This record gives sequence, structure tokens and C-alpha cells, in this order.
Amino acid sequence: MTDLLMSEMFYHLESTFQNQIFDGRRRVIIERVSPEIDCGRYAAKRVSGESVRVGADIFGDGADTITAVLNYRRVEDSGWSAVAMEPAGNDRWEGSFIVGEPGRMEFCVEAWIDHFVTWKSGLRKKVDAGQDVSLELQIGALIVEKAASRASGRDARRLLELVSILNNADQEVAVEAAELGELLRLMHTYPDKSAATRYNKVLPVQVDPKIAGFSTWYELFPRSWAKRPGEHGSFNDCRRMLPLIGRMGFDVIYLPPVHPIGKTKRKGRNNSLVAAADDPGSCWAIGSPEGGHTALHPELGSIDDFRGFVSEAADHGISIALDIAFQCSPDHPWVKEHPKWFRWRPDGTVQFAENPPKRYEDILPIDFETEEWESLWTELKNVFLFWIDKGVKIFRVDNPHTKAFLFWDWAIDAIRREHPDTVFLAEAFTRPKVMARLAKGGYSQSYTYFTWRNTKHDLQEYLTELTTSELSEYMRPNFWPNTPDILHEELQHHGRPMFLIRMVLAATLSSNYGMYGPAYELCENEPVMEGKEEYLHSEKYEIKAWDMDRPGNIRAEITAVNHIRRANPALQQTNDVTFVRIDSGDGHEHDMLIGYVKKSADGTNVILTVVNLDPHRTQGGWLRFPLEQFGLSFDHRFQVEDLLAGRTYEWDGEWNFVSLNPASTPAHIFNVLLHS
Amino acid sequence: MTDLLMSEMFYHLESTFQNQIFDGRRRVIIERVSPEIDCGRYAAKRVSGESVRVGADIFGDGADTITAVLNYRRVEDSGWSAVAMEPAGNDRWEGSFIVGEPGRMEFCVEAWIDHFVTWKSGLRKKVDAGQDVSLELQIGALIVEKAASRASGRDARRLLELVSILNNADQEVAVEAAELGELLRLMHTYPDKSAATRYNKVLPVQVDPKIAGFSTWYELFPRSWAKRPGEHGSFNDCRRMLPLIGRMGFDVIYLPPVHPIGKTKRKGRNNSLVAAADDPGSCWAIGSPEGGHTALHPELGSIDDFRGFVSEAADHGISIALDIAFQCSPDHPWVKEHPKWFRWRPDGTVQFAENPPKRYEDILPIDFETEEWESLWTELKNVFLFWIDKGVKIFRVDNPHTKAFLFWDWAIDAIRREHPDTVFLAEAFTRPKVMARLAKGGYSQSYTYFTWRNTKHDLQEYLTELTTSELSEYMRPNFWPNTPDILHEELQHHGRPMFLIRMVLAATLSSNYGMYGPAYELCENEPVMEGKEEYLHSEKYEIKAWDMDRPGNIRAEITAVNHIRRANPALQQTNDVTFVRIDSGDGHEHDMLIGYVKKSADGTNVILTVVNLDPHRTQGGWLRFPLEQFGLSFDHRFQVEDLLAGRTYEWDGEWNFVSLNPASTPAHIFNVLLHS
Repeated sequence: MTDLLMSEMFYHLESTFQNQIFDGRRRVIIERVSPEIDCGRYAAKRVSGESVRVGADIFGDGADTITAVLNYRRVEDSGWSAVAMEPAGNDRWEGSFIVGEPGRMEFCVEAWIDHFVTWKSGLRKKVDAGQDVSLELQIGALIVEKAASRASGRDARRLLELVSILNNADQEVAVEAAELGELLRLMHTYPDKSAATRYNKVLPVQVDPKIAGFSTWYELFPRSWAKRPGEHGSFNDCRRMLPLIGRMGFDVIYLPPVHPIGKTKRKGRNNSLVAAADDPGSCWAIGSPEGGHTALHPELGSIDDFRGFVSEAADHGISIALDIAFQCSPDHPWVKEHPKWFRWRPDGTVQFAENPPKRYEDILPIDFETEEWESLWTELKNVFLFWIDKGVKIFRVDNPHTKAFLFWDWAIDAIRREHPDTVFLAEAFTRPKVMARLAKGGYSQSYTYFTWRNTKHDLQEYLTELTTSELSEYMRPNFWPNTPDILHEELQHHGRPMFLIRMVLAATLSSNYGMYGPAYELCENEPVMEGKEEYLHSEKYEIKAWDMDRPGNIRAEITAVNHIRRANPALQQTNDVTFVRIDSGDGHEHDMLIGYVKKSADGTNVILTVVNLDPHRTQGGWLRFPLEQFGLSFDHRFQVEDLLAGRTYEWDGEWNFVSLNPASTPAHIFNVLLHS
Repeated sequence: MTDLLMSEMFYHLESTFQNQIFDGRRRVIIERVSPEIDCGRYAAKRVSGESVRVGADIFGDGADTITAVLNYRRVEDSGWSAVAMEPAGNDRWEGSFIVGEPGRMEFCVEAWIDHFVTWKSGLRKKVDAGQDVSLELQIGALIVEKAASRASGRDARRLLELVSILNNADQEVAVEAAELGELLRLMHTYPDKSAATRYNKVLPVQVDPKIAGFSTWYELFPRSWAKRPGEHGSFNDCRRMLPLIGRMGFDVIYLPPVHPIGKTKRKGRNNSLVAAADDPGSCWAIGSPEGGHTALHPELGSIDDFRGFVSEAADHGISIALDIAFQCSPDHPWVKEHPKWFRWRPDGTVQFAENPPKRYEDILPIDFETEEWESLWTELKNVFLFWIDKGVKIFRVDNPHTKAFLFWDWAIDAIRREHPDTVFLAEAFTRPKVMARLAKGGYSQSYTYFTWRNTKHDLQEYLTELTTSELSEYMRPNFWPNTPDILHEELQHHGRPMFLIRMVLAATLSSNYGMYGPAYELCENEPVMEGKEEYLHSEKYEIKAWDMDRPGNIRAEITAVNHIRRANPALQQTNDVTFVRIDSGDGHEHDMLIGYVKKSADGTNVILTVVNLDPHRTQGGWLRFPLEQFGLSFDHRFQVEDLLAGRTYEWDGEWNFVSLNPASTPAHIFNVLLHS
């Protein structure tokens, strides 16, 4: 299997340095191709329908003219498509292509000295200087004659006719022929690529399904949705939630682990070390005699019930995302079946999870240094394949940064080869380079630091990093204002307005966002204790019964924002974002009002979002809309339609006043009608 | 030969991706190693005695402790040396090594999970929390026991003793043993590298001779130094210049081409198209029936004369640099011997150089697209080898950017394998990426845009780019205030002070600098016409007779500055430069006073240079010396010794007043005595 792994993981290296068949006549240099991640080791990511803009430094010795093309294909294709690259200044060239269905694509840049164009522009200069060009015309005729020999049929005949004109006609007529657009087109159809340079790497692009780029997640614990409060809920119980959640505009329901829960060292309510007899335990303590990662917790239902739930969700436009947490309760069948996958202590027990001096005795970590890593990797990969077979395409992976990176590289790549429409969300809240490495290694989406970016400065800085650094090529953020683990202090203390503020920010800054739904909708804000981010009576350790119609809930607002996202392509992408200037009136940047413009790839949909970060006071300020980015004058008149409030404003020029009262709606989401 | 070329050019790729023997137990990731230029395709450059500071992003999954080492060696060695890398924050690690004699070195980064240190720090936390650690001690004993099995002799015996203490002693005694420095050292002597990660590339370092990093060039045309004015000078005539130039502190004399000069289409004085009978021609029109690139112009002397000149120069501490210009006069023997190395026109003539509509009919360019490129490359390489055999180690290459890049990559690498002490200066004044590519391809030094960087802003910006971007790893600037081709407008109009200003800037900003000596010393400032940078009566086209004692010459000042450079290591490197703030008094940055601090690698030599860029008026301002960079308080008292004026000042704190009168000396070069 080792060989197999190698050939799978490094398959693109076959093509690396393929250029080594050495030809000293190659005079063109191609360098600094982008996107290229870690020398081509990792793929740039796109979703179906997006474009890949390729750049390269391309130059030759001397002053001859260069022609450059971008070659691209799906990896399974035998031939290549090609598109011309254009110079963009300072020896940089650019070209682009659109990606199609999910799968793997690759591209390569190729360039050569274009002797015909070099000759043609020299000819023109000599003619303009009044020089005799009879010899020049003969030189050109030879160049065209060679192209004729590469052509056939009508093209070849036409090229030979032109050769004859260059050689024999009156000088003025011959020069005219030399400059025919038809001749240039023919010459570019049959170029002399005998000394062409190909960039020394073929670079990969991962094409993901559209939902990897635009998704709206709702997390719920199915056991809390029994028809009768107090009972253990099931998949069948949860079916009644699907129309509600679908109507709210969510397209992913994410379920915490649905597997049998261990009894040994089970945690009780509020994370207590000793569980009461009727405590259901944490669903992340996976595995019991009833099964492990490919079994269902019996009270949730059967595999058929699960399939039915997934299928009915699809009818409401909702995909079910499973939580994959590779860790075991002491009761997990793997402990007996594969003892070498765990680290054993001298007393004959398995090493439990710890962060000294803290101990997590209900959880056994898997030992990725096991000598049996090959069987381990295969089994873990099979967990995904098992659930894919049951209709799941989206996986939220728990703490991937505590499992071996090479495993993820291999497993995600292997799964994706068979199932290119799968989506993997990395739940890693850890150091920046570790999170980036998981994204490079194949994760489609990543949890982020959004939850802890609360000030205007921090939000702008973080978005700028995500959207303008190399991260924008491979790391797709998924913004969550809360999770079952994280009730941020800002949500604890500032009531409903803060829930609205953070929801609008998440939903409009990132095209992928989600929430731990019932708690967020209902503005649950009580922590287990002051200074902690854990919820009081956390649903992780107990079955809850939520009253979804509780007064003060923000279901209507969430629904409105989600529908605005659906209707506006500008909000269905993350990287094209421009923060706007908002002045407080005394010439200083406003601290509390944040604003940003997003536009769709075709430029037709422009959304300006303005949020008041102050949950307590009305804030007003002067906003400068960047008309110059749209080729419009500073005094252009246009309309903005507030999609939340349903009101339209006439704006006269770039500076306009905005004011937001957090007690009603702390945000504008403007559809900018520049040519109204 | 094609195979040979391949194996030579890409030899370091053998080791690329050598890591593919795949082991899934490797949990450490190594990324973004620096210096790494274009994925390791090109070498970082150092001169003998400099250090290579290597950085890498290194991290593992989870929270285990990592150990990282930097391995390095000369490519001809079989074993590796290793040095520990240290964490530098944000998962970055650093380590360094010193390079020795000229040649090729390589390095690689290696890291692994350190189970012993991980265990030891967990043990400490558990002890501090009052937990029972008897089981922990047994676990540690097993780790140490494995190290013992990797060790032998006394170390193995000592490790086993410690195992016994961990297993059997009183808990307090055992914990003490676990934390012995001796144990840590032994464990690091016998590390468990069975799952170590090596970075996937071995990266090259080019070690050049010291003169590649610190050199002072004087260009002269030997034919102008006949003992009797009007005659054609010879190498023997030039011998009398050697003590003078040596005393001025120059260590390189660079000679324009010394080969036979063609007669066909020879250029006359002031670049006229028709030469008079006694015009000597441009020495760049190389080749006559008397020979080409491996022959000497007969009037300059014999090969023995040349050898004698080189040898006598060496006695004065001076190396002779030759100009290698790969182009031919129509009379060059290659035209007949290797007709396929040139491009022929339909009328049976060889294509001359042109930049339409301009024609340079005295020069035939070599066709690097020739099908006979292998014989061409070999012959061109042999030109260098021929002159190396005659004692030349330094080559200034004329317009390398109009010859194939791949040729330079190959030729310089091939020559350097045999002669690692050779130095190549690229005379390319062209676009930034082209100049960078030549440097990456092996050139030891590069001409720059210095000549056209005249304002404070432009100089600071240019130096910052050269010294802080990736260029600093491979492109060594060589600053020239003039050349026989370039008499900058600033030198034409501002008299002797401007010659002093530009000389001091070149000599103190760049450790490599040079001048077209006689013209510069004498402040020659007359252009061929207003608006042109060519000299009137250019020495390129005629034999000159210079009166080196002409009043107003700046020999004394040049000599002083060159001797200051020799005495101060801070000025013998380029990359460690910090521009200082100089205020005009009204709180604004001074436009005309520029200042910069350089320090030697060991920090003991600190030079502050201040230059008045205004050649006409005295300028004064407040200079802020960056005491904080030296760990000193803003109010520190210290001395600065002006090495040009021979005066010492007491400076009280960071802000001090400086004033420079361009009519006397437009610069201070301060030796900063921080602890005087």
C-alpha cells in the first residue's frame, strides 16, 4: 500500500520538471506563475463556474516579441485547451479560464519568441523611416513559408499566396499584405513552437461543488427534537424541522456525532466528571458495544431512518452534514479490534486524552504514530465512504489539527477522486499556519477567528488577510457567530442587538456562514460561569427542549438575511470585498460603523453592507462609496435600496450620510443601483 | 552533450522530493524554508565567511514538542553537519551556519516530535498539580530505555542507570533524575528520528570569493596609456599605472575588450559611421583576421605581456577584470568558421545588429537559436576558460540580457565547478525581472539603476528593494556613478561637488562599486550633445591622453573613501543598512540630507554616512541616530568620528545637528563609537 499512497499523493509530480528534455534554443523564461502554492504541491481552489486568473513573469533575451498561452485541462483529459495570455506590464502576463464540474484541473504556461510579429513590427518601423525594405520582405516571406509548411489545405494555400505577394509584389502592396489581420491570424494558428518554453510545473486546481463556496449552515442536536419534551429525539422527529429550516434559507443542517455514546467515564450535565444514570453523555465520546463511527446511536434511529431524513432534507434543498470526530470512548469496538491504534500505558490501560495537568478520561485519542498506520488510515477513510454511501456529502471534521496532516492530505484526496462533490469543513481553532496547512491539504472550508474579531479594525484586518493574501487561493472561511462550544463574551452581555450584528457580519462578510441554530435564534446568552465561553446547561451534555417561538427570537431577521444572500450573487463569494471609508463627522474614521462593498463576478450585482457595531446607541456617519472603482465620477447620482428595510434612497455623489439604530435594525444591506 | 547539459544544470534536482519514501507516521510539517529561490532552482549566494540564516515554518499536529535541526554540507562532502534550530514565534524556526571556501553548499531542514521533552514537560505539570506520577515515570523510563538501545558504550550504560532510577527510585528522586540536564543532552545525542520529517528539497547555496562581496573597480582603456601621447598604448605601458591605482585603494582594474578590432564598417570618433584611416575603432567590434575572443589586439601586446601585466597587478593587490562581449565584427574568424552561429539574410550577408530603424552594421549578433547551439555554447564557455588560464578570475559581461539565459545558467555553473573563485559582473541595464534573472542564473554581481537614482526618496526606495526583498539573497549590486557609456545629466551640470556626492554614495551604499576612472577622477562632464548621456570625444572610439594631475581632480577624496572602506567591515557589506531620519527643523523630513547606518556582522563596527545631495548649498538638519537598535537609551552619550574630516564629535542622545558644505566636503562618514 505504501507505493499506492505515494502514487496517489504525489501524482502531480510526474509532470513536475517534465521540461527537462533540454533544448538550448529556448530563449523565453517563465517564472513566478500564480496561483502556485508551495511549488505546486497543493491545488488552488475554485468552485464550479469560477475563473482561474493565471499570472506569470515572461520575458526573453533581447527585444524580440513574445507570444504566450495558458494551457489547461481536466486531469482526466488527454488534450489541452489553450487561451492567449496578455502582457500586463513589467513583464507580467495574464490569462484566465473558467472551471466546470467538480474535479481536478491543471494548467501550464507556454511561451515562445514570435519571429513573425517581431519581423512585422520591425518592417513597419523601417517603412516609416523611409528605408528600402525589399530584403526585409524576402525575410518575412521565408517566415511565412515555414508556417505554410506547418499548415495544410486551404490555410497552406493561402499562406503560400501571401508568400508570393511578399516576394514579388510592388513594395507597397507587399507591406500591406504583411500587415493583414488575416495573415496574423494564420501565423498564430500555425505558430513555430520548436523552441517554445513550458513552465517547469503543471499546476493543479481543485474544483469544488458550488456549495463549497456558498453555504448557510444550521447546527442542531437531533436528540433534542423529540415530539414529547424529555424524551430522546430521533431522525424521524427531526423531519418536522426541515420545512422550517428550509424556509429560513439554510441549505446545510449539521449534526454533531450521531454514533453510539460510551458509558465508561461518561460526562454528566455541565461537563461534570460523574454522569447521572439518565445523562445521555457527550456525543463526541464515540463508541459503545453497539458500534463506533459507522453505527448510529440506537435512540436516534436506524440507518434507514437516517437515509429517509437525508432524503427528505434534500427535498427542502438542504444537505445533511455529519460531524467526523476521530476519537474513541473507552468502549469503542476499535479498542479491542485494533489495540495497536492506541497508545498503551505500562499499567495495561489505554492512554486517555490529556493536556497536563488536565485529563479527559472519557476520550481516547488515536495514535497516528502507530506502526499499523496503513490499516488505520484505510479504516478512517472508510468511515467517510460509509456515510457517503448513506447520502452524506458534507463533513464537518472535529479537531483535524490533532490528527496527522499527511492522513488528511491522503484521505481527502482519495475520497475526492471518487466523490468530487464532497465538502470538508475543518473545525480547527488553532494557530494560523496549522489552519492554513489543513486548508492546503484539501479541506474545502475552514472555521476561522471571526468569533474573536469584534472591533472594526480587527474585522477589516482579518478580512484583508483572508481575501488578499495567498490564503484566498485555498482557504475558504466559514464564519460562525456561535457554536455549542463558544458563546462569545460579546453575545453574553449585549442582548438581541448583538446577535443581529454578529449574524449580519457573518452572513455578509463570508459567503459561507453558519450558526448553532436554536441557541442563536433564541439569543441564548448565559455562560456556564462569568469569563467562560461555554453555555450554561450545554446541549453537549444534556437533552434540551427548545421553545422556538420564544419572544425576542431573531428568526425573521435571519430569514431575511439568508434570502438576501440567495438573491444576490455579490454575497455568494468572499474574496471580492472593499471596505469603505466612514467618517464620524470630525474628519476621523468612524469607530463603530463598518461598511463594505461586494460585487458579483460579472459586476452586475453590487451590495454595500453597513453595520453599527455599537449594540446600544444609534450611530451616524458619512460614508464614501468608491465610485471610482466602477468608472464613475465622484458626483455620480445613484440609488441604493435597503434590502432589509425595503426602502430606497437617492444618493448624490460619493459621500452620503448613514445612521443605524441598533434597537431596531443595526445594519443596512444596500443593493447599489449605480445606473438607476 | 544534451544529456551532459541536463545532468549539470539540474544536478540539484536529484535530491528534490527525495522525501518520497513515504511514511505515514511523520507528523511534523516543514514549509516555507528560506532562503529558497524559485523552489530551489537557484542558489542563495554568500561570500566566504558569511552566514546563512535559515528559516522554516515547522509544526506538528497536536501539542507535542518538536525538535528541529538544520543540516548542511559542501556538495562534495558525503556527510552532513547539523545545528539545532530554535523557535522564533508563530511556528517559525531559525538556525544558521557559516560558509567556508568558494564552492557549492546545500542545506536541508529536519524535524521530529520529541517524545522525551513532551513527556518531561507533562511530568513537571503533573508534579506541580500534586498528581501521582508513578505511572508517568514508568512511561518515561521506556522512552529513555529506547534511547539507550540507540546508544553504546558509556552513554548507553548511563542511560540504563537513569532508566533504573526512573523505575525504582523514590518519586522525588526519580523526578529529579528526569529533569537532569545530562539526561536531556544524552536524549538529544540519541534522538528517535524514526518518524522524522525532512523538508522535501535540499537547497543550494553558492559560496563566492570575498571579492564578489567587497570590491572596488577602476575601468580604463589600456590603449590610452602609451608613454608618448598619441601612440597606441600597451599592457606594458599600463604597468606604471598599477602602483597609483593600488594606492588609491582599488582592487579591480577592468579592461574593455582587448581583442583585435574589425575594420569592416568600423566606427569613427564620436560614433561616426565612417572611420578615418587612423581611427582605432570601438574595441567592442571584436574580431579581425588576427583573431577573435581568444586573441589580443596586436598593439596591446602579446599573451606574455598580458600575463606579465596580470601578475604585476596582483603584486599591487589588484585583480584584472576582462570585458566579455559576445558579438562579432564582420571580420571575426567565427563568421567563416561557424557560419551557422549567425543569421543569414536572403542576399547572402549576415544579419547585423539593429533596433529598427537603427542599424549597427559594425556588429553581428550571435544567433542563440542556431541548431548548432551546443558547439556555440562550448566555444563561448571556452573563451572564459582561455582567459582563466591566463590568470583572469573576474569577468564583466557585456549586455548579457541579449544572449540566451539558459546559456549563462549553464556556462557560469560549468566554469564555477572548476573555478569556484571566478566572479561574473552582469552589465545589464534593462528591465527589473530580466536583471534579477541574470543574477539568479549565476552572475556574482550586477550593474544597477544607481546611476539614475538621484533623489533621497529614490535612493532610499531602491536600496530598500535591493536589501530587503528576495533580491538580497542572490543579486549583489555594483554601483557605478559613471561608465564610458553613461555620463549622467547630474554629473554634466553640477561640477566637482556632484562627482564627490555620487562617489561617496556609491562607495558607502554598496560594498561593490566602481568608476570609469580617468574620466571620473578628472570630473569630465561634457556630453556629446545636450540631453545625451554619451561623453564627447568618447574614449570608446578614440585614443585619449589623460592628464591625471589636472587641477580639480578628486583623486585624494576617492583615495580617502576607498581606504575608509578597507578599514571598516560595516562598509564591506550591502544588505545591513538602515536609513535614519533627518529633519529640516520644521518637523519635516529633510529633502537634501540623506543618512544611513551600516554595521559589521559582529556588530562591532558601526558607520553612519551623511550626504548632502545639494551640490550648491550648505544644508543642515537634525539627525536621529537609532540608538534603540543597539539596545541603548534615547539619551545615551556617545562619540562619532568623522573619518573624512578627521574630527570627533560628542553626541548627546539620539538627536544631533549635522551640516554639510558641498564646496568643501559634501559628506560625513562617521565611525560611531557607541561605548566611548
